[in-house]
Amino acid sequence: MLELSGRELAAALRKEAAARAAALAAAGTQPRLAIVLAADPEGDSPSLWYVRSISRAAAKAGITAETVGLGETATPDEIRAALRRLNADPAVHGIILQTPLPDGADPAQLAEEIDPAKDVDGANPRSLGLLAAGRPAFAPATAEAVLALLDHHRIDLAGRRAVVVGRSTVVGKPVAHLLLDRNATVTVCHSRTRDLPAVTRGGEIVVAAVGRAHLLTGEHLAAGAVVVDVGTNTTVDGGLAGDVDPESAASTAGALSPVPGGVGPVTTALLLMHTVRAAEHGADAPA
Amino acid sequence: MLELSGRELAAALRKEAAARAAALAAAGTQPRLAIVLAADPEGDSPSLWYVRSISRAAAKAGITAETVGLGETATPDEIRAALRRLNADPAVHGIILQTPLPDGADPAQLAEEIDPAKDVDGANPRSLGLLAAGRPAFAPATAEAVLALLDHHRIDLAGRRAVVVGRSTVVGKPVAHLLLDRNATVTVCHSRTRDLPAVTRGGEIVVAAVGRAHLLTGEHLAAGAVVVDVGTNTTVDGGLAGDVDPESAASTAGALSPVPGGVGPVTTALLLMHTVRAAEHGADAPA
Repeated sequence: MLELSGRELAAALRKEAAARAAALAAAGTQPRLAIVLAADPEGDSPSLWYVRSISRAAAKAGITAETVGLGETATPDEIRAALRRLNADPAVHGIILQTPLPDGADPAQLAEEIDPAKDVDGANPRSLGLLAAGRPAFAPATAEAVLALLDHHRIDLAGRRAVVVGRSTVVGKPVAHLLLDRNATVTVCHSRTRDLPAVTRGGEIVVAAVGRAHLLTGEHLAAGAVVVDVGTNTTVDGGLAGDVDPESAASTAGALSPVPGGVGPVTTALLLMHTVRAAEHGADAPA
Repeated sequence: MLELSGRELAAALRKEAAARAAALAAAGTQPRLAIVLAADPEGDSPSLWYVRSISRAAAKAGITAETVGLGETATPDEIRAALRRLNADPAVHGIILQTPLPDGADPAQLAEEIDPAKDVDGANPRSLGLLAAGRPAFAPATAEAVLALLDHHRIDLAGRRAVVVGRSTVVGKPVAHLLLDRNATVTVCHSRTRDLPAVTRGGEIVVAAVGRAHLLTGEHLAAGAVVVDVGTNTTVDGGLAGDVDPESAASTAGALSPVPGGVGPVTTALLLMHTVRAAEHGADAPA
């Protein structure tokens, strides 16, 4: 079974982002990413580890990452006000609204506030619509990472049967649009799908984005299937488990992206690249 | 084979739209729909027949329909200016940008100008994104008509395999989102799909939205499949042909919507209903 590692691709993307960030800085524009965090910034949830990891990667690439900590008691109005302030600040090029949010705050509703030109993680539902219509917009970094990883490993998509497991607004739906745009025949399945193994066995390419550790096994996969695992589920011992059981999948899959080391590092690198693009030109910029 | 007629449903919807329009008018708000037409208004293309048919239906329901004729030489800037003027006009509740547009005018790009609260045919890509994220927005009337027709004929969707043939921004993609939202397992196929008959035979529900007369035959359908035909292809003798060959389909399909008389009248009725909703409350209104 081929391992679809993301480390090489992520390193190349980080290197390019750093070079373009340096060129921007030399021309007087310091690329800046703002991460709105409605949580205790000293906590140790997976969400906070992720924010720290993005901040470290940004710093290494010469991008300023600013965590806008609103605290775990932030109200929707306070989050909205922070997003509007960042939209209006010309020194800020990219905005991420980190989830989960406090109870009562709807991520999709609040993300509608993010200026699409600064929406580097494609969180604004309008960005998804523009994407679906073939208009310039930032895709959610995770969804774009799935396609980038497939391209990097030279997996053909046109005319092939792709199955996306999971229908979230941040991963499943945008991945489906990106695959359609590349001429794959796309099936989206989810928790209410009947006989999931039979449906996923129909996929030459399977994207697992369901958020349940090791839900997909060899039984779910056709012989030779190319499998991209988007899952990042925390295990009881503090580790990370994908949505695919790699040992079981190895008996049937032709290729599988590892967790960690597959989609994850590419996602982070694409967030940096999107921030650089936003600093260069806004969402209308070519990649 | 059961006929999934849209006439009864369309009549009920028109009756409700007329009652709500009358209530609005009695309260001092005359519901008004503006149709932006970049074509010769005296022409006889299918697009113009459609505009006249909507205008007649609106008038019968007590909704004012105004055709904003820009002529067939209208530039993108002129179309954009007309849409902005209508957005700003409080007397206008719904806006339709009629396609096709003159060469050089991109419908998705121009539709981005339509205020989502007045976007009664869900043409703004942002409306599609909001829809996909479960946020209030008007769906394209044709896409919503597919679901309304299935509901009217009490076709279960949850957990069932639905295949959408066609991936347009105005029908295929929004239908896929609406079906997903109703817990169907959804496959989208298109011109680049390999072995289309095998894929469509996997559907318990098949939505044909491809724009090629009689492309789908009995060979494409599983025994008992429920088939909704969105196609409105003009025939050489001036008639209307669906994307499904009804004689051939009759040998295998369990149910089929007729063309004309299926999705079409429901679409027109839903445009009127959307206009009434927009006049009542804007896009945030419940149905």
